[in-house]
Amino acid sequence: MQATKHGEQGHLQAIREALGEGRLKRVGKLLHRTHPAKVAGLLEALPPNERRAVWSMVDTERAGRVLTFLHEEICAALAQELDPDDLAASVQYLELDDLVDLIQVLPGEIGARLLAATGGRRRQQLETLLSYPEDSAGGLMNADPIEVRPDVRVGTVMRYLRLLDELPPQTDMLMVVGRDGCYQGGLRLSTLVTADTDERVSDLMQVEVAGIPVDMPAAEVAQLFDDLDLLSAPVVDADLHLVGRITVDDVVDRIREDADRSVMQMAGLNQDADTFGPILAGSRSRAVWLGINLVTALLAAAVISRFEATLQQLVALAVLMPIVASMGGIAGSQTLTLVIRGLALGQIQKGNMRLLFTREMGISVINGLLWAIVIGLLVFAWFDSAMLGGIIGAAILVNLLCAAAAGLTIPLLLHRLGIDPALAGGVILTTVTDVMGFFAFLGLATLWLS
Amino acid sequence: MQATKHGEQGHLQAIREALGEGRLKRVGKLLHRTHPAKVAGLLEALPPNERRAVWSMVDTERAGRVLTFLHEEICAALAQELDPDDLAASVQYLELDDLVDLIQVLPGEIGARLLAATGGRRRQQLETLLSYPEDSAGGLMNADPIEVRPDVRVGTVMRYLRLLDELPPQTDMLMVVGRDGCYQGGLRLSTLVTADTDERVSDLMQVEVAGIPVDMPAAEVAQLFDDLDLLSAPVVDADLHLVGRITVDDVVDRIREDADRSVMQMAGLNQDADTFGPILAGSRSRAVWLGINLVTALLAAAVISRFEATLQQLVALAVLMPIVASMGGIAGSQTLTLVIRGLALGQIQKGNMRLLFTREMGISVINGLLWAIVIGLLVFAWFDSAMLGGIIGAAILVNLLCAAAAGLTIPLLLHRLGIDPALAGGVILTTVTDVMGFFAFLGLATLWLS
Repeated sequence: MQATKHGEQGHLQAIREALGEGRLKRVGKLLHRTHPAKVAGLLEALPPNERRAVWSMVDTERAGRVLTFLHEEICAALAQELDPDDLAASVQYLELDDLVDLIQVLPGEIGARLLAATGGRRRQQLETLLSYPEDSAGGLMNADPIEVRPDVRVGTVMRYLRLLDELPPQTDMLMVVGRDGCYQGGLRLSTLVTADTDERVSDLMQVEVAGIPVDMPAAEVAQLFDDLDLLSAPVVDADLHLVGRITVDDVVDRIREDADRSVMQMAGLNQDADTFGPILAGSRSRAVWLGINLVTALLAAAVISRFEATLQQLVALAVLMPIVASMGGIAGSQTLTLVIRGLALGQIQKGNMRLLFTREMGISVINGLLWAIVIGLLVFAWFDSAMLGGIIGAAILVNLLCAAAAGLTIPLLLHRLGIDPALAGGVILTTVTDVMGFFAFLGLATLWLS
Repeated sequence: MQATKHGEQGHLQAIREALGEGRLKRVGKLLHRTHPAKVAGLLEALPPNERRAVWSMVDTERAGRVLTFLHEEICAALAQELDPDDLAASVQYLELDDLVDLIQVLPGEIGARLLAATGGRRRQQLETLLSYPEDSAGGLMNADPIEVRPDVRVGTVMRYLRLLDELPPQTDMLMVVGRDGCYQGGLRLSTLVTADTDERVSDLMQVEVAGIPVDMPAAEVAQLFDDLDLLSAPVVDADLHLVGRITVDDVVDRIREDADRSVMQMAGLNQDADTFGPILAGSRSRAVWLGINLVTALLAAAVISRFEATLQQLVALAVLMPIVASMGGIAGSQTLTLVIRGLALGQIQKGNMRLLFTREMGISVINGLLWAIVIGLLVFAWFDSAMLGGIIGAAILVNLLCAAAAGLTIPLLLHRLGIDPALAGGVILTTVTDVMGFFAFLGLATLWLS
């Protein structure tokens, strides 16, 4: 690992040095020796102006591949740097599904121009693929399956394949299609090469791999690939006609992007944001999240302000109140995370909802009591006041119970409303635990002191 | 999607109903019709005692496959429910890499017994695979590559393959190995089937897919598969001898697990925890995280307590101080998330560290000034006090700058220390922003008021 990482860093360093010294030829040479995925990585790690300089040195015929490895924002920016004709030339050997993704990222008129520059059958296929939603099986698929008939023999199939120059990338399976155009099964290449030449395709084909409906959500396609260890799978329309093929590399990309997106979203960041992009753009997108947080913080402040008289009477309350809010926030986010994951994995269903509630509330009772006692005793020792210890203990217990209830209901509610719980769940939860924490603690103190 | 989800839920419901009615035969029948991955999903969604009942109805010959789809904790528990001989029987057709993973999850003596029950060449291969660290290429690989010599012709290869009953699952490529045992290249099945029978393997083989060193970290293997769109890849030892083969399905599992782990860890949860496990075990693991958080909350409380006199003088400070801490926490976690991701993707390297610092500090100056003014004005309007507005504005600016600095340095420091920044980064950051937020706000107020 060390070697590779150093090698990579050295590579980046070498390119930057060559760039700094104006040795553009050397930059071009270094780039030419680098895999498109790595070139994309290098570009993303450069500040915008150096990035533009390096980008201009990438060979036109490799630029298209590089674009497919970039995050959206950077991809769109760099594609627009290219001369339209060069852009069209650079993408002409891309796989169709990659080209579709690229067009969807680009501003409308540039995408349209790319489409127009594509000719014949490829153009037609491209238009069909573009018509499917990005987040569906149709949006993931390629239009390149190799079809064979069920009633032919292995020898015939082999002769047919030898007529082809090469098979599409990631071909592990031929699609068996009847004369009516309906998908019947898959013939694995690994089965084909071990079969006798006079065996019939219909006897060899795998029927377990059912056709994936073209409108199946991408997340479900990913789950299917994972569960069945698929390398590729057929996609069918409503009439079970074969319309395309999904390959595992696109599914892997999707899984990585989804994981990445949820981590970024939890911090209110845009997944496709450029780590080294312009400062002003970066500030703007983050300011929104800070603004949302301000509203919830003001809500908590408003709750506290209701108890100014109590705080005036006993200023130690101000010292301790953040503890109540923070313990609730942590406990709630544990429940929230577990529920969000359970929903994503399909573990949580109608039949076991009650069990989940019992378990989470049970855990929060135990942890609530435990930490109520610990914190109560600590505060008693610190402030030498049994009353203050009692108040904070009670408030901790109340807030941990509320936190568990909120951690359970918020994601289930958001899920039912069709909102991604990973996006909004955290903010709503913290609002609840802050408000409840301050309210319970200061409210109990007010009752006790009056 | 709806159809499948309902179907699945209905399935679970049907199994639970049959179980409730004591119709065990029907349970067995329903299970037999379900893919092992789905059976695993069903088991994870059941409470422990129903789970045990359903598990006892799974056919022995399918139980091994089901185990490979379960999360660790549940997998270990259910494997131990089986009679040792049944367990040994259930795993005898598992792929070796799956069996390795299983043995690593099981308690020592059960794993040892499984190993002892494996015979001959399989046992030998198993022992070799078990000797590699789980998180390395060796831990991901299988010992089943099909080898061919570089100097033979396609026709010979085809005849050799036809002698084999079937190829190992997920075979898309034969490994070309010289007489010295060294890996030379890969021969894709898709190339083989389109080639003429008298072409030579050495002319057809792909040499771009280099052998993966057996000690390459799993994360790097995943990156490699992703970048090069690999379906399988050869693994070689230090002498470049072919020792095994990694297939993409295991890489996908690894990517999913890693993503899952980082989300769970951020909430202080154990990735392999059972969503429906016993309450006490669940409470214990979460209590640790709450305890760590308590220490940081007490630290913040200690800071506040230094300013009790000031709070006594102006109780409005208690109302407003959580706002300062919370805005800092959000801003800091944005920087933190971006840096953690940049490190994971390899975007952040020595050469661009300064650029990253400039950008993040720039963003925090802009957002710091923006929100200092907004919140200052709000507080001025709310409390009719220009002084209070000025104090909170200044504190917000200071805390957002500290937050950015902490969000930058904490992950870089943890990364250098070899600690996963995703695990500990969040807690440390919040401690910094809480402490700094309270200190800056109350400290400034003390200066102003005195």
